Amino acid sequence: MTIDYVHGYSELEARRLGDQANALAALLHEGTSYPAGSKVLEVGCGIGAQTVHLVASSPGARIVAVDVNDASLAQARARVAATAPDAQVEWCRADLFDLPFPEASFDHLFVCFVLEHLRDPQRALVELRRLLRPGGTITAIEGDHGSALFHPDSAAARAAINCQVQLQSTAGGDALIGRKLQPLLANAGYGGITVQARPVYADQSLPELVEDFTRNTFIAMIESIGDDALAAGLTTPDHWRRGMADLHRTTEPGGTFHYTFFKAMAANPPGFRGSSALSC
Amino acid sequence: MTIDYVHGYSELEARRLGDQANALAALLHEGTSYPAGSKVLEVGCGIGAQTVHLVASSPGARIVAVDVNDASLAQARARVAATAPDAQVEWCRADLFDLPFPEASFDHLFVCFVLEHLRDPQRALVELRRLLRPGGTITAIEGDHGSALFHPDSAAARAAINCQVQLQSTAGGDALIGRKLQPLLANAGYGGITVQARPVYADQSLPELVEDFTRNTFIAMIESIGDDALAAGLTTPDHWRRGMADLHRTTEPGGTFHYTFFKAMAANPPGFRGSSALSC
Repeated sequence: MTIDYVHGYSELEARRLGDQANALAALLHEGTSYPAGSKVLEVGCGIGAQTVHLVASSPGARIVAVDVNDASLAQARARVAATAPDAQVEWCRADLFDLPFPEASFDHLFVCFVLEHLRDPQRALVELRRLLRPGGTITAIEGDHGSALFHPDSAAARAAINCQVQLQSTAGGDALIGRKLQPLLANAGYGGITVQARPVYADQSLPELVEDFTRNTFIAMIESIGDDALAAGLTTPDHWRRGMADLHRTTEPGGTFHYTFFKAMAANPPGFRGSSALSC
Repeated sequence: MTIDYVHGYSELEARRLGDQANALAALLHEGTSYPAGSKVLEVGCGIGAQTVHLVASSPGARIVAVDVNDASLAQARARVAATAPDAQVEWCRADLFDLPFPEASFDHLFVCFVLEHLRDPQRALVELRRLLRPGGTITAIEGDHGSALFHPDSAAARAAINCQVQLQSTAGGDALIGRKLQPLLANAGYGGITVQARPVYADQSLPELVEDFTRNTFIAMIESIGDDALAAGLTTPDHWRRGMADLHRTTEPGGTFHYTFFKAMAANPPGFRGSSALSC
C-alpha cells in the first residue's frame, strides 16, 4: 500500500528535510511533549528529521521510530546519535501497514509528513489506531500546498507548485491533505479531535526564515521535482524556469511567502481494544 | 480617491460586520493595547465593529474614530455607547485622504479592513504617516482571499470567491492585499515592520466558529455579492448556486474551512516631522 516516495532519497533531499525540520521545529513541535516513561511510536521517521526534535522535547519517553527504508533509518540513527547520544530510541524497519507491534502497545503516535504520501491515509489511521491504548493520543502533522500564497503573485509560480501537487497525486499521495485531517481522523474512529493551523510567514524582516523556509525548504522542494514534472509533460522548460524565477522573487526584499501546516491531535476512544501481534 | 464600498451599507451587512468583529476579536486584537493617555486614530471605523474592541483593550487611550460615511459613524457611536457607555471616543466624519488633524498628532494608528478598499493603499499609508509622531506606531490588519482553503474542495466554490476578488478589483480595491502589507508599509516609509499571519480554522469541533466565521462571516460576505457578480457577468445563476452550496458544505460535519488574516505593525521612524493642518 505504500507508494514511491515522491521526494526521493538523495543526499540533497536529506539535507532539505533536515533544514526544514530545524526551521520548523518550534512551529510544529510546540505543544508536543510526552511524559517520561510513556511509549511513543513515530511512524515514518524517514531520516530522523523530526525524531531529533521528539527526543529533545520528550527526553524521558520511550520512542520507537519506524520507517520502511533501511538507508533512511541508518541516517536517522546517525542523526539522533549526533545530537542526542544518550537518547533511547528503538529503531525498526517495517511497513506502515504491517507493523510488528502488539495492539494497544503505545501511549502515543506521532505521524508527521507521512499521510500525504499514502494511497489510503484513512486505512493507515485505522491500522495505527489498533496500536494505540484506549485513551492514547495521535499527533498528525501535514502541510497543504493550497495554502502557499506569496508576493509578488505569479501564475507561473502557482503552476510550478501545482506540478508537485499533480506528481504527488499521480504517485497516489495528496499534497492538499492538511485541510482533510479532521475528517480523516474522525472517519478512522478517533475522538477528541482538534486541528490547529500553524502558519509560516516570511519576509525580509525575517531573513533566516526566508532562507531556511522559503528558499531551502519550500522552493527547494519544488525545484527538486522539476525533471519529473518535465518528463511527465506537466510543464515546459521555459514555463518551469519562469515559475522558479518567480518563486525566488518572493525571497527578495519586498517579497513575502506564506504557508500553513495543520497539526491534528486526537485520541483513541476509551473502550477500544484488540488482540496481539509480533514485536519488532 | 476613496471608492464605492464593495460591501455596501445595508442592515444585514452591518450585522455581518458586527458578527465578524466579535468572532475574530481575540484573534485580531490580541497584542493590541494602547497605553492610557496615548492618542489613537482609528482610520475607517465603519460601523464601529473594531472600535468596541479597541475601547475594551485600551480603556485609557484617547481614541479618535474617523469614517467617511455619516450613517456608519452614527451606528458606530451607538454601538460603542451600548457596550462601553463611559468610553471616551471622539467621532469624526472625514475622508482618509483629507484628514483634518495636525501632523504628528497621534501616537498610534489602527487601520483594519480599510486598505483593501482603496485604489492607492500605499499613498494612503504615506498620508497617514504624516499624522503619526516620530516613533509612533501603525497597526494594519487585512485578509487575503487567496488564503481561503476548505474541504470538500470545489472549483465552483473557488470561482464564487473569485467573483468577490474580481468585483473588489473592478471597484479599485484588492481582496488579496494581506500578503502585500510588508512591502506597502516599507514603500510608504515605515520602519520596524513585522507581519504576523493569523489563521482562522474551523471544523465541527468548533461549532461556534463554524457558525460565526465560516457561515456568518465568510460565506455571508460572498453571498452578499451574488447579484453584483451576476450583473457583472462573472458567473451564471447555476454556477453561483453550486458555488454557494459547496461553500455551505464546508460547514457540515467533516467539512473544514481555513482563512488567514495578516496583522502588520510598524513605526514612523524617529526624525520624521511635518507642518500642521486643521483639527476635527
